[in-house]
Amino acid sequence: MREKEGLNETGLIREIEKISLITQKFNKSIIIKSIGDDCAIFRDKNSMLVSTDNITENVHFTLKFYSFYEIGSKSLLVNLSDIAAMGGIPRLFTLSLFIPKYVNEENIKEALYGIVGVAKKYRVSLIGGNISRASEFSISITIIGDYKDENVIKRGNSKIGDAVFVSGEIGNSWMTYYLQKQEKHIDKNYINLKNFEKKNIENFISKFKLPTPRIKLAKELAAKKLANSLTDISDGLYKDISNILRFSQGALIWINELPVNENLKHIAGLLNIRKYEDKIISFGEDYELLWTTDDKNEKEILNLSSRLGVKIKKIGRVVNGINGIKFLKNGVEYPIKDSTFRHL
Amino acid sequence: MREKEGLNETGLIREIEKISLITQKFNKSIIIKSIGDDCAIFRDKNSMLVSTDNITENVHFTLKFYSFYEIGSKSLLVNLSDIAAMGGIPRLFTLSLFIPKYVNEENIKEALYGIVGVAKKYRVSLIGGNISRASEFSISITIIGDYKDENVIKRGNSKIGDAVFVSGEIGNSWMTYYLQKQEKHIDKNYINLKNFEKKNIENFISKFKLPTPRIKLAKELAAKKLANSLTDISDGLYKDISNILRFSQGALIWINELPVNENLKHIAGLLNIRKYEDKIISFGEDYELLWTTDDKNEKEILNLSSRLGVKIKKIGRVVNGINGIKFLKNGVEYPIKDSTFRHL
Repeated sequence: MREKEGLNETGLIREIEKISLITQKFNKSIIIKSIGDDCAIFRDKNSMLVSTDNITENVHFTLKFYSFYEIGSKSLLVNLSDIAAMGGIPRLFTLSLFIPKYVNEENIKEALYGIVGVAKKYRVSLIGGNISRASEFSISITIIGDYKDENVIKRGNSKIGDAVFVSGEIGNSWMTYYLQKQEKHIDKNYINLKNFEKKNIENFISKFKLPTPRIKLAKELAAKKLANSLTDISDGLYKDISNILRFSQGALIWINELPVNENLKHIAGLLNIRKYEDKIISFGEDYELLWTTDDKNEKEILNLSSRLGVKIKKIGRVVNGINGIKFLKNGVEYPIKDSTFRHL
Repeated sequence: MREKEGLNETGLIREIEKISLITQKFNKSIIIKSIGDDCAIFRDKNSMLVSTDNITENVHFTLKFYSFYEIGSKSLLVNLSDIAAMGGIPRLFTLSLFIPKYVNEENIKEALYGIVGVAKKYRVSLIGGNISRASEFSISITIIGDYKDENVIKRGNSKIGDAVFVSGEIGNSWMTYYLQKQEKHIDKNYINLKNFEKKNIENFISKFKLPTPRIKLAKELAAKKLANSLTDISDGLYKDISNILRFSQGALIWINELPVNENLKHIAGLLNIRKYEDKIISFGEDYELLWTTDDKNEKEILNLSSRLGVKIKKIGRVVNGINGIKFLKNGVEYPIKDSTFRHL
């Protein structure tokens, strides 16, 4: 009782129940009872996937750069990416809201609209939640998905000689973060930036501040057996490539082949950001797919790419692991600082 | 990457993986893959229950009054109670840790020991988690359970004429909170308290700061069809009784019959706390079971009570709802302030 002072909790819970009601229909074959009891009840004849992730103010976003709608969207998008990273189908989610005093009911409603927008797009159903007071705004989501037959792609099944593929572009999340964080520095040191360049930077930020979970692509990779080992890039290419290799394997990654946005390169030049490849490789939060597969699948993968309208790039090869992971730039080894960061 | 500065995350994740490994065996028939991939994988032929709840510093606990071990324990116990509130069997859980700068690795390990202790006792398996920096310490858990056959007890199935039962005692959580919060006030205004009285107060706090989820009792109530409608007391008797009634139903609750700890009454007298019944009825967080059932089941319920060693008390009756929920003390209506608090 003591935790909700000053919060119109009844109103918020009604909003959450509304979302539950709206989104229930997407998975009515497995939901037996949604919000409104001590637990939700579901039944699924398939195997289930579960993952949990949160986004927290001043860690994953700031209120200066993200609208509440975007924060809500992002909180669900990053969780959807975990289901994509197994080739699964997202189904259900629970929601924990941590609400500071300076976030009001309207703000929360906006965040909920963001969540419901993503839920509708990806057809996932909200089946539980709770609200707590806190010092900063945070959203914690647990996502539950499923998969049919044997169509799930775990990590650690790479074969030596496999090609390494990546979807979309990498580094856009880092550049967005950099531009936001360095805003004052840029204003101060680059006073001669032309208006169209400023606009270009603004556009870059707004285009890439939210990730796109690659649900469809991953599902097809799983169904067509086009990946031996799969993950999403959340901790950075360097870490995530290690995650999908077997213990005894290494990889060669060709830096020249990394799919980097042309505008990112342009802005990096404009702002004199040196060795941005390091950042691109180690920053993470791109939520693109990263997988390994036999060379013979390349043609089918490229077909998939054009059919789904998702860029796919071959960026390296799985090798015998005695030398670990090597990055090559113009054929020469490119040294990368190790990072101790690691998600669960 | 940017969120984990100064935290030995690798060490913490190893601890979490250890817990996952230790607790996996309790549910090996349903866990296909635990921590170590983008999602955990499980498969259950029964219907599943899911619920999420968090405990947050300065909302649900303070570091002054709770050890990290106790905080860890409590975070899982309150979630187990949600599974008990449906008569289900808890199986799996995911864990989100929000870690402020003043909480170090040893503290977190202690909290994890608290979690693993409870996980072992109730045979639940940790299958996923994540870590984030935050301004205060918080633990968010999503619990997944299951149930066999039709053995689940939803809310809202009460019948007019049903007796209302409650397990254990109610109000102990409120008194514990009161004694902690009023510590200075008590020190200042009750300087003549005898040592054995002070000791009595200390004992009360340490005895009741952690809840006991009534998993076994609820499972038996479900299996033996001894409850029409069931919940756990998390929001306070007043709110929770409303939750388990049908729309058109009301209830009479006999305040003289409420199971109140003798020491609570004694301490309330000692500290001149007036109308403590109000607090007992509205505070919540007792995590005792509250259910309605036919009178004919009373004998079997009392047998269950003595077999499991859990107090059970009949405290009221479901009536035609035109007059809502009425509390009676010595046969006279006892007015209760409404509370707008409500969990999901």
